[in-house]
Amino acid sequence: MKFGIVARRDKEEALKLAYRVYDFLRISGYDVVVDSETYQNLPQFDPGGVLPLEEFDVDVIIVIGGDGTILRVEHKTKRDFPILSINMGTLGFLTEVEPHETFFALSRFLEGEYYIDERMKLRTYINGENIIPDALNEDAILTGVPGKIVHLKYYVDGGLADELRSDGIIIATPTGSTGYSLSAGGPFVDPRLELFVITPLNPIALGSRPMVVPSTSEIEVISLPPERELILSVDGQFYTRLEPEAEIKIRKSPRKTKFIRFSHEIYPKYPLRLKRRF
Amino acid sequence: MKFGIVARRDKEEALKLAYRVYDFLRISGYDVVVDSETYQNLPQFDPGGVLPLEEFDVDVIIVIGGDGTILRVEHKTKRDFPILSINMGTLGFLTEVEPHETFFALSRFLEGEYYIDERMKLRTYINGENIIPDALNEDAILTGVPGKIVHLKYYVDGGLADELRSDGIIIATPTGSTGYSLSAGGPFVDPRLELFVITPLNPIALGSRPMVVPSTSEIEVISLPPERELILSVDGQFYTRLEPEAEIKIRKSPRKTKFIRFSHEIYPKYPLRLKRRF
Amino acid sequence: MKFGIVARRDKEEALKLAYRVYDFLRISGYDVVVDSETYQNLPQFDPGGVLPLEEFDVDVIIVIGGDGTILRVEHKTKRDFPILSINMGTLGFLTEVEPHETFFALSRFLEGEYYIDERMKLRTYINGENIIPDALNEDAILTGVPGKIVHLKYYVDGGLADELRSDGIIIATPTGSTGYSLSAGGPFVDPRLELFVITPLNPIALGSRPMVVPSTSEIEVISLPPERELILSVDGQFYTRLEPEAEIKIRKSPRKTKFIRFSHEIYPKYPLRLKRRF
Amino acid sequence: MKFGIVARRDKEEALKLAYRVYDFLRISGYDVVVDSETYQNLPQFDPGGVLPLEEFDVDVIIVIGGDGTILRVEHKTKRDFPILSINMGTLGFLTEVEPHETFFALSRFLEGEYYIDERMKLRTYINGENIIPDALNEDAILTGVPGKIVHLKYYVDGGLADELRSDGIIIATPTGSTGYSLSAGGPFVDPRLELFVITPLNPIALGSRPMVVPSTSEIEVISLPPERELILSVDGQFYTRLEPEAEIKIRKSPRKTKFIRFSHEIYPKYPLRLKRRF
Repeated sequence: MKFGIVARRDKEEALKLAYRVYDFLRISGYDVVVDSETYQNLPQFDPGGVLPLEEFDVDVIIVIGGDGTILRVEHKTKRDFPILSINMGTLGFLTEVEPHETFFALSRFLEGEYYIDERMKLRTYINGENIIPDALNEDAILTGVPGKIVHLKYYVDGGLADELRSDGIIIATPTGSTGYSLSAGGPFVDPRLELFVITPLNPIALGSRPMVVPSTSEIEVISLPPERELILSVDGQFYTRLEPEAEIKIRKSPRKTKFIRFSHEIYPKYPLRLKRRF
Repeated sequence: MKFGIVARRDKEEALKLAYRVYDFLRISGYDVVVDSETYQNLPQFDPGGVLPLEEFDVDVIIVIGGDGTILRVEHKTKRDFPILSINMGTLGFLTEVEPHETFFALSRFLEGEYYIDERMKLRTYINGENIIPDALNEDAILTGVPGKIVHLKYYVDGGLADELRSDGIIIATPTGSTGYSLSAGGPFVDPRLELFVITPLNPIALGSRPMVVPSTSEIEVISLPPERELILSVDGQFYTRLEPEAEIKIRKSPRKTKFIRFSHEIYPKYPLRLKRRF
Repeated sequence: MKFGIVARRDKEEALKLAYRVYDFLRISGYDVVVDSETYQNLPQFDPGGVLPLEEFDVDVIIVIGGDGTILRVEHKTKRDFPILSINMGTLGFLTEVEPHETFFALSRFLEGEYYIDERMKLRTYINGENIIPDALNEDAILTGVPGKIVHLKYYVDGGLADELRSDGIIIATPTGSTGYSLSAGGPFVDPRLELFVITPLNPIALGSRPMVVPSTSEIEVISLPPERELILSVDGQFYTRLEPEAEIKIRKSPRKTKFIRFSHEIYPKYPLRLKRRF
Repeated sequence: MKFGIVARRDKEEALKLAYRVYDFLRISGYDVVVDSETYQNLPQFDPGGVLPLEEFDVDVIIVIGGDGTILRVEHKTKRDFPILSINMGTLGFLTEVEPHETFFALSRFLEGEYYIDERMKLRTYINGENIIPDALNEDAILTGVPGKIVHLKYYVDGGLADELRSDGIIIATPTGSTGYSLSAGGPFVDPRLELFVITPLNPIALGSRPMVVPSTSEIEVISLPPERELILSVDGQFYTRLEPEAEIKIRKSPRKTKFIRFSHEIYPKYPLRLKRRF
């Protein structure tokens, strides 16, 4: 079995724990590769096994960090490697294991006592082309000029779903329903479901409401005059500026995020994490 | 083919149109039965074919009225007869055909140019027993004393999802997402989906939010001290008072509502109906 | 100086603390009267000084309990006696002093080191008559049949402000803005302001929003067909059933609630209490 | 009496009506000055009476346009000239007169049959200095990077009111309560009131709610790490970028906006304009 290791770059504890995991796995006889950005921040790793995320080809990736680190892995790796994530973040909605449980979790994993929690992602086409990462949480289509509304229409499976004057619109997965979409008034969605939550951002029309649509749908968003530059944010990590006339299409991605979990528990685990936001 | 006819009881136009449909179908050689409550309000129908809804056994029911009339049919009939509904109500979220299109719609139906739009329903168990109608829109579990909150816990698949001090809680289907749940802050749900929307009613804790959960789940609601009588409202039509210690379980019903539709259009049809609420 | 004493009836600690305060004040040479309901629950008080709240005529009332006990005092006393409140409730939005600070607070009061925090109240006229208590928090005009909406219009200074199909409507003071109105989507209001917050309860029309209007206004609420019995709840404590055709007018009351406070602090005191609701 | 004339620059009808008003007033013997930007778009005006708004010194300004044109006048003129506004915009929340009523309104004004509707404004101090226009609607303090939240604290009269991770915060006047603040969940405020509405923009903490505070208060907003550039938008018209460490203070301005009105009507006028947003 071959492991990849990725740590949060800005937290010494995360880097140190990453090294301990690395050491443990090598001593136990496993192949281990280390993400090159992690290596840049802690050069103790053997340079021989250092690779950029884009070139990882492993059986599982150990991610030591917060949701941001997981999203970085998701945006850069080329295949759906299972992720075992250790929480070194603030909220840790996506992470599974607390730092003190790291080696206990590793043994359970090595003994095969886990299951794979697959999460849907969004694939985004701009003018017909997909050149940006898939979203695990959400695509946010935002005004390029903070405080100046954009005028958008969006379609579901070719039919007009709403016309908005707003700060933008969020298209979220169930995984992302606890993020930006929730702040903008969207519902919590059970992670076992596959669907899109479409949430308008501060719409002028008070009748514009969050919509829940099937994951088999195609969502299209277009911008109307007065045309303004748009910003597309993928998971709050990857940003791109769009021409006002860009045509944005979003579909369920053929790729999945695969989390290694040790329990099927959803309730009260996820709702409790919501409450922690206060 | 055997038809059933049901009309809104309090609207003369609906009763008259029902008679014209009845007459047309009989002249065309079809078997037609008439709902006994409709007959009570327009005694022109042949008493020979009058039956209570509970005893209907037909191939299709023509409903002439609003959403309330459809819900009455749904709550009383014993099998999932397809419904062809003609709108004589105010909003008509569920109805398909406007009165002037009645006979055009009937011909299309007789020629087989239609499809069946199946909608999930909720089955409700009180202390383990199901003695109340299935809900097409929602179960609302409400304080029995308006203005006095109840203290509830609800579980999804056995795990605690939230603890609420509120005016109550709504468990809605996608069909019901445009009703009471929407007024209480829930999202719009595409009718092609099967899921539950759980929406708290004016909760004290501002962190209690609408939740979207799989239709395969079991939802359980219990009441905590100070115990108050609860009211369970099914589709805003059927009401029952519950003891504070009642244990309420809700699952997807094995029954469906079957609407005869002539178009698969969802967008912009459904979102536009939302806007009409203003 | 003459003191009145009122305690929460259902909490032994509150009754015992009331007795200690009573004892301390009598030993210190003050006149003390005790509320007759408090006496019923702790008969140690000297029966000579027991009076119903309605007959209190004192310089200050010591209230030992939660917001409910304060509201009971407010609804029953005939004049605006200053209230020194000791928190024996759960949330204690209105109360000032924690139990362990009781005697320290009493000394500060006796030394004159306090100020009076005056709060506006609502006076309610039903068909032109005021026969119900003034509201310190809110008047809630609610459907008499839980789950069945009412159809209301309300006017501000004679002009139509909104027409609603909803579970009801709340008219709150700034003091009440942190209560039922907040749960229904209303804003937090600084207690130094005098104004009304009018909050619709789960309105069907998504464009019906909370309104903030001057305390000099007259608010009138009428019910439209289909007419349903209404319930008027004053501060969630006093309830009355209204005929559907009742005409409800609400104005600022000439009476005030007077709280004895030892600090002018509003921020962060009040917003923090909001967060405690989670 | 001396008149100023300002028209919306991008609408020919507005410019033409401005010329007709100009002509009528000159023929009637009044002094009239024309805004230099208006003149640039319709050079028929006599160049002798053309002045930049900053140099206007008149008795009344006739504004022909939408809310944007009024805000431009407000941001640039040096004194509180009464404004008679003719609606050539889309919504026209602030405007008083429809185009076809222009000359009727002018006669009523000349006969003295009007009243002045004074509206409070916000004065903004950045690091102690006021170098930006007063806001008639709102100050919006926004993330400089769309989709990346800022971490803010705000204080009311020196006391901490809330700590936010959000897209920003809006401080609105009653006039502005129907604008951006409403889209973000704030209440409608009667224009007769003087107060601030503080509305968080998509806050992560669901317990952060709109607050209504006295117009005598000082509101201070500061940014916390991770520090991000902020954008301050005044009325959605004037924008400035702020250093992350900027200290922003907002108080009621000594200046007012003075609208010439012919009716004191508030209800149903203003709530109806809200409904038009749908």
